[in-house]
Amino acid sequence: MKISVLGTGMVGRAHAAKLAELGHEVMIGSHDVTKALTNTANDSMGNAPFVTWSGSHQSIKVVTYAEAAQHGEVIIDALKGEIAVEVLKSLETELATKILVDIANPLDFSQGMPPTLTICNTDSLGEQIQRALLQVIVVKTLNTMNAELQVNPQLLADGDHSIFMSGNDQEAKQKVRALLAAYGWRDIIDLGDISTARGTEMLLPIWLRLWGALKTPMFNFKVTVQS
Amino acid sequence: MKISVLGTGMVGRAHAAKLAELGHEVMIGSHDVTKALTNTANDSMGNAPFVTWSGSHQSIKVVTYAEAAQHGEVIIDALKGEIAVEVLKSLETELATKILVDIANPLDFSQGMPPTLTICNTDSLGEQIQRALLQVIVVKTLNTMNAELQVNPQLLADGDHSIFMSGNDQEAKQKVRALLAAYGWRDIIDLGDISTARGTEMLLPIWLRLWGALKTPMFNFKVTVQS
Repeated sequence: MKISVLGTGMVGRAHAAKLAELGHEVMIGSHDVTKALTNTANDSMGNAPFVTWSGSHQSIKVVTYAEAAQHGEVIIDALKGEIAVEVLKSLETELATKILVDIANPLDFSQGMPPTLTICNTDSLGEQIQRALLQVIVVKTLNTMNAELQVNPQLLADGDHSIFMSGNDQEAKQKVRALLAAYGWRDIIDLGDISTARGTEMLLPIWLRLWGALKTPMFNFKVTVQS
Repeated sequence: MKISVLGTGMVGRAHAAKLAELGHEVMIGSHDVTKALTNTANDSMGNAPFVTWSGSHQSIKVVTYAEAAQHGEVIIDALKGEIAVEVLKSLETELATKILVDIANPLDFSQGMPPTLTICNTDSLGEQIQRALLQVIVVKTLNTMNAELQVNPQLLADGDHSIFMSGNDQEAKQKVRALLAAYGWRDIIDLGDISTARGTEMLLPIWLRLWGALKTPMFNFKVTVQS
């Protein structure tokens, strides 16, 4: 399948690499392709520059956001939460009628750590994107664990932990479920329509504090149900 | 130990009954003792009236909030979130220097189901209570699952699921940890100071949607960590 990833950060890279490994035709969209491919400095978190990653993933074409949105049948939103709505709105034509997998979180780092949310409680980023792009089919998922676990769930508890999905379109959720299953996810919980993204986005505050308490980001929630 | 429970709803009853069963000297505090002991109608959720429950738990004395707060060495806040700060503030003298176990959630049902939160993101009910009662030692816990599981964790997955604690005082958290262990909890995660109650209170939105998706309230989160 033709799949694109928007965003060249660690999350976007993890998905693009995994999707290529799974045999998909992957493009990764950048705000500024030239800059992305010439900047050789580590980022503020000490991560290697994008160009290094790109050099070792040469099958993944680095393109503009618009080209990426045009290419994919499914598009993964791995943009920073704060710019997601604006960038996606600018791609309305290219994204129309396609499935947009929104994995972004509306984190606000401006007040220090841990970040708060810029949207919550009575709205969510998933809903904002769906409202801004009425012809796009938004499925919110994958935003509740770290990027490495998102694409390699088997690294933890032999894959026996939970992931959530929110969206208004059943058929789109079936497609995304298949993609998640290909990543290795087994316990995929459909929470309901896109408004249920409020629930998964509001998991971030406890996720961030568990990261502090457990001293590792390699954890996740398993929803245990009485049989 | 002398323990009191504030609130005569299903959550307060569950804790009072469990604590009495564990051998504690339990009092349960009501806004209006006479009314609580004479009202014979089921509540709006179809639950039996308090007087029926009280009749089958005669060792548990039904008293005013103030008498309950005076009696307990540890006091459990099982009040409705919307009235908790005001009621607790009125008990400042009785509660001073004691441990207050806050299990309330700041739910707002006024806009229909599922409820939203009246406080979140940059504050929490746990923090509001701690700020309002500087001489009281607040420990937030137990607010992330249904009342039956709160007091009987072994009913699910042989007790192998997680509970969280937030509070500024280590000694108080040790006492509360012992109480939780007596209930049957084994995976007790100390998230840190009382501000981490934002994380557990903001779990409610996904809890409510999982309740809808799973069609049972008998579930909980197990935090699975890479070993």
